[in-house]
Amino acid sequence: MRIRFINALILTMEENRPLFNGEVHVEDNLITYVGPSLELDETFDRIINVEGNLLMPGFKNIHSHSPMTFLRSYADDLPLFEWLHNAVFPLENKIQPGDQYVLSKIAFAEYLTSGITLCFDMYYSPLETAKAAVDSGFRAALCGTVTKYKESVEEMKAAYHTINKMSPLVSYHLGFHAEYTATPEILKELAKAAHELKVPIWSHISETKREVDECIEKYGVSPAVYIDNLGLYKYGGGGFHGVHFTDADFEVYKKRKLSIVTNPSANTKLASGIAPIKRYLDEGINVGIGTDGPASNNALDFFREMWLVTGLAKLRENDASVVDAYAVLKMATVNGATALNMLNARYLSEGSLADIIMLDLNQPNMQPINNIEKNIVYAGSKSNVIMTMINGKVLYENGEFFLDEPIEEIYRKGQEITERLKG
Amino acid sequence: MRIRFINALILTMEENRPLFNGEVHVEDNLITYVGPSLELDETFDRIINVEGNLLMPGFKNIHSHSPMTFLRSYADDLPLFEWLHNAVFPLENKIQPGDQYVLSKIAFAEYLTSGITLCFDMYYSPLETAKAAVDSGFRAALCGTVTKYKESVEEMKAAYHTINKMSPLVSYHLGFHAEYTATPEILKELAKAAHELKVPIWSHISETKREVDECIEKYGVSPAVYIDNLGLYKYGGGGFHGVHFTDADFEVYKKRKLSIVTNPSANTKLASGIAPIKRYLDEGINVGIGTDGPASNNALDFFREMWLVTGLAKLRENDASVVDAYAVLKMATVNGATALNMLNARYLSEGSLADIIMLDLNQPNMQPINNIEKNIVYAGSKSNVIMTMINGKVLYENGEFFLDEPIEEIYRKGQEITERLKG
Repeated sequence: MRIRFINALILTMEENRPLFNGEVHVEDNLITYVGPSLELDETFDRIINVEGNLLMPGFKNIHSHSPMTFLRSYADDLPLFEWLHNAVFPLENKIQPGDQYVLSKIAFAEYLTSGITLCFDMYYSPLETAKAAVDSGFRAALCGTVTKYKESVEEMKAAYHTINKMSPLVSYHLGFHAEYTATPEILKELAKAAHELKVPIWSHISETKREVDECIEKYGVSPAVYIDNLGLYKYGGGGFHGVHFTDADFEVYKKRKLSIVTNPSANTKLASGIAPIKRYLDEGINVGIGTDGPASNNALDFFREMWLVTGLAKLRENDASVVDAYAVLKMATVNGATALNMLNARYLSEGSLADIIMLDLNQPNMQPINNIEKNIVYAGSKSNVIMTMINGKVLYENGEFFLDEPIEEIYRKGQEITERLKG
Repeated sequence: MRIRFINALILTMEENRPLFNGEVHVEDNLITYVGPSLELDETFDRIINVEGNLLMPGFKNIHSHSPMTFLRSYADDLPLFEWLHNAVFPLENKIQPGDQYVLSKIAFAEYLTSGITLCFDMYYSPLETAKAAVDSGFRAALCGTVTKYKESVEEMKAAYHTINKMSPLVSYHLGFHAEYTATPEILKELAKAAHELKVPIWSHISETKREVDECIEKYGVSPAVYIDNLGLYKYGGGGFHGVHFTDADFEVYKKRKLSIVTNPSANTKLASGIAPIKRYLDEGINVGIGTDGPASNNALDFFREMWLVTGLAKLRENDASVVDAYAVLKMATVNGATALNMLNARYLSEGSLADIIMLDLNQPNMQPINNIEKNIVYAGSKSNVIMTMINGKVLYENGEFFLDEPIEEIYRKGQEITERLKG
């Protein structure tokens, strides 16, 4: 399958390559040409006239819990503890095999509408989510989530071997839910697995102040230091949220070259605080962006997240000039791919994966045009996403989905499952 | 013109009237029926099958500067002072007659995509903006903005008489830009005009801490007290922003039954702070929502604003349960209309103005459906707005605009003007 995009404005996200007008070729799952417009006789399976709109790499959603769509808008405006114990856990306990497959597909469809071409997903039974991704054509990295209640290191090792052989669309990473839901024994066993497989480790980290305070009380050190002391970061990885880092935590993340994934919507809506993004950047720590799950956010909208990354940083630092739009776009694309060591997903460039989005600039929120990058971050909206391509396949275009089953069917099944879980 | 909406899910926003399935009739500019589905023989000019999607009153954007679209994404990531003096003012000084007419139309189109059916707009030369609104079919309340540099109370009185007679789509209110850009003499003259005309007064108020500190330094009292002492609030009105209110300011707003209009995006992006929304509600003060202008925001997206109103309140109060979704929806609709004393624009009810929006529930961000109101505020997006009707006319439907000139023409002229202003 060969696709040619003509008359495009192109933002490759490569360093020092400014926006330019030209064309892009895709062959199977790869980008084969990015450059000025060409006079060509060759045949393509499809020629897409971009009509001066923007092509750029898809957004990388580096922290989510996709199957949790059943909890969207089910219980909001509640204190965190009450929300978890009276709303989230009771419904989660009723999940049956097959449910996650459907519930994830709703999230994947939502990602497509927002220009997200990769999600790093943490939830139980990752095989179902992986299968849903492969069937949908969506790209997903799955993350293990051992706790003292559910999942074991052994199960994660099995998932590691299965999912990493399943399809080029999916991969699997070891992880644990969080320091406060694990025991030192579990974490030691996990460290051993990471050393055996020579792989990075991911987890929630320092999402709330309480979590940090309790970790220091229990172990005398803050979470990143505690995790590092157990040897879990020997092969890299990183953490989700990172709202309340101590100086020592920053040192660990610098020394181990770890990544932080910021989830500004969820941290705001659950009143957890504002992550110190400016400091992460100043320290040279790689920062990616995640939507977190639909239970807490409730949308999976990367435009909301991007705007909040910079907006909240400005508010936190009391300085309207910090964390500029381009830095945010880099986090949303390049840094996300870098966090997962998916170096061929960083740019819209020759040889990279054909994970491309098209943004409509002919909508009022982009007009008049003064600065495209700032427009995307400060004025952009899901309504500007008019095409999302993953692995060389157009999965979403002008409001229509091209998945393995009709979207209405996915909605219907999702609603049915949700009613059963609530019942 | 008679229009019938059938198979609708209806959110009227009236107190104690829960969501229901039914139909809505519109005759000319008014809503003539809201109730259960009917068997009818009557003819209508158009029957719109809502297909189970949602009809609700349009959003009221109670503070904006619509003509400032030329500054969208022109200068961001700058400290406030530098932004105003090096970017905003030099370009504003080059505006020529006719420019605002076009530039406002871009904003009106953007409002339509976001389900906004009314804006309360503060900018110089309100006649041009008013004419743009009338020609577009958009509903706008214009607000005077006298400062020591531009506009006079006399000019405002003239605009008051002209615009209030112009069309049922537009109205005019007296206002001043802010305490710090006025002199006591101007404000005394304005108070006299308000007493003569028996009208409310509006202004920016307590947007930054610096502004409040300097007011106290100059006059010994905080802005709301100062303004009230001059007699400006005798006939009501209110203020935009209200981020840094003193206890005495709250007292003035309660006593005078004034409204606060919160602008969370702009306050975040310009690092001004988080408004005390919970306290306003606790004190019984009417709170509306505004996007502020495209120069500071940069989008005019009510879904962003609604989410931020509750999100930032949760962050500020360190409590995930405050300012719930329904309270936000009320601010976005009923309270906005109440602020301007437009009581027939509050609800989707018989006899009210036909300012109605249709939200698509068959998009992944609304699925599965657990709670529609929470979905709108927490998961909703401009992409869900599939129709915007103002004064009984469909101005936006499925991504298309129905204005007095083609949208491409408005973009072209807007870009031309912007290039000239930057040149």
